[in-house]
Amino acid sequence: MDGISEKPVCYVNGQLVPEGTGAVSVLDRGLLLGDGLFETMRVLGGGILQWQRHWERLHTGAQTIGLALPWTADELHQAVGQTLHANNLCEATVRLTVTRGFSPAARGLLPPADAPPTLLIRATPFAPYPDHLYRDGMRVIISRKVRRNEQSPLSRVKSLGYLENILARQEAADKSADEALILNTQGNVACATAANVFCVHAGRLHTPPLEAGALSGTIRALVREDLAPSTGRVVDETQLDDSALLNSDEVFLTNALMGIMPVCAIDGQQIGSGIPGSVTQALRTAYEEWVSAQCAVEKG
Amino acid sequence: MDGISEKPVCYVNGQLVPEGTGAVSVLDRGLLLGDGLFETMRVLGGGILQWQRHWERLHTGAQTIGLALPWTADELHQAVGQTLHANNLCEATVRLTVTRGFSPAARGLLPPADAPPTLLIRATPFAPYPDHLYRDGMRVIISRKVRRNEQSPLSRVKSLGYLENILARQEAADKSADEALILNTQGNVACATAANVFCVHAGRLHTPPLEAGALSGTIRALVREDLAPSTGRVVDETQLDDSALLNSDEVFLTNALMGIMPVCAIDGQQIGSGIPGSVTQALRTAYEEWVSAQCAVEKG
Repeated sequence: MDGISEKPVCYVNGQLVPEGTGAVSVLDRGLLLGDGLFETMRVLGGGILQWQRHWERLHTGAQTIGLALPWTADELHQAVGQTLHANNLCEATVRLTVTRGFSPAARGLLPPADAPPTLLIRATPFAPYPDHLYRDGMRVIISRKVRRNEQSPLSRVKSLGYLENILARQEAADKSADEALILNTQGNVACATAANVFCVHAGRLHTPPLEAGALSGTIRALVREDLAPSTGRVVDETQLDDSALLNSDEVFLTNALMGIMPVCAIDGQQIGSGIPGSVTQALRTAYEEWVSAQCAVEKG
Repeated sequence: MDGISEKPVCYVNGQLVPEGTGAVSVLDRGLLLGDGLFETMRVLGGGILQWQRHWERLHTGAQTIGLALPWTADELHQAVGQTLHANNLCEATVRLTVTRGFSPAARGLLPPADAPPTLLIRATPFAPYPDHLYRDGMRVIISRKVRRNEQSPLSRVKSLGYLENILARQEAADKSADEALILNTQGNVACATAANVFCVHAGRLHTPPLEAGALSGTIRALVREDLAPSTGRVVDETQLDDSALLNSDEVFLTNALMGIMPVCAIDGQQIGSGIPGSVTQALRTAYEEWVSAQCAVEKG
């Protein structure tokens, strides 16, 4: 078996351990204070899709919160590879978590100077979103409970504090919806609980700017820089209020696991013709082609 | 020794374990998503100061985030007592942490139905704030980096997501200040990174309302309901911008560990006469008397 485990193992600070026993100290600042960052990545054919973008976001986030990463991009990439290999996974979802660790002597908010960061990696078999969602589109709500703070430096950092997003996602589930969109404190659209938002108006693509509280998503970047241009379109960064979104011809969501996901209804109101539109479909096709090309690169 | 350990022990899901080995699963939602709550309490003469207020805030917070607490107030109080006893502590700081736990099968944001919450309790010897701070007053800054989202349901919940507060506290330390005040998205004062804010204008006491993003602090409530009335004053809940605060006759901070802490300067600008004022001093005296009375109750 050469190091391949039958049971899932995870990576905890340099060790591969059974997932059931993998643990962090009760003193860890990630646990006690949400003091850390994470990335959720898709692995396809053994390769991490958009590793460079994930690494750059992690690196930028660490700078924003003043956390000195003691690992190079290559070292983290290698640790993910070890975790995938140990679980015998080629098609996977990988979550990489970095916390500020802890110093046994220190209490309180101020980061201790001498705390080595904690590194956790979990790889699970890739579970695609159900086909019917891609075919028919997601039904989403606009959260009434949660507003995203676009003035926070954390709105542009993938930090551990996801409780607002959890509340909005629960609100969606309570209304039998698949996802929730979150407005910022000004009432403009920021993002979904775990995705970026795009819309199509009269043939033009729009997505909220980072200043609106949008997270810098890896598929958001791919759509703007690669997929939209490849289909002959540009993406405008536009402040969108809820009525702009409701009156769109098409709406879709993006994240590293779902890729490009059509939205057919917001708050029970049909978007466009109520089925995935032509711009969304063209981008989905471009995304699938891009994914295939990535696999070919990995294999070649 | 009757169960009293030489080395610090902490409480982890019903077990008392050495602090150095106390751990939670790498799957815990508190760690991965900041999905949980905490209370920091002062123990004096073996008794928890304001246990009822801490319990009520925890309970209200749990309702806000949809977490069903499986423990009664008495059971949690008893668990804290066990932890204190095992550490042979009568004067302590206690941190009680509750997370939504985890379900091994579940990934993603939506809270699993079947996850038992995680309960952690840590007790450390009480370390009072330095005398000179009470005598001379704290030097604080107004954070330029962080704004508190007063529209978030979490602004009134003591949730695990403290990274914004950490950034503001680091900003204060970088400017050689003791604490940072945080404005809300409207530019009004919400709180400090780990305290509530009060000010005195022409003999009247003011503190930001909860709607401004103030956390419902236990000493904030004590000042409003007991200490201020006992000194013949009332506390108005008032929206305060930074200039209102800078032009105050007195400013002080409150939390469960510091009690009542004078502020002598904000952003390098002297407050009032630059030394703790008479209203603050009267409240400090009332607080010390209240603390002594609590000890007498415990012993009596």
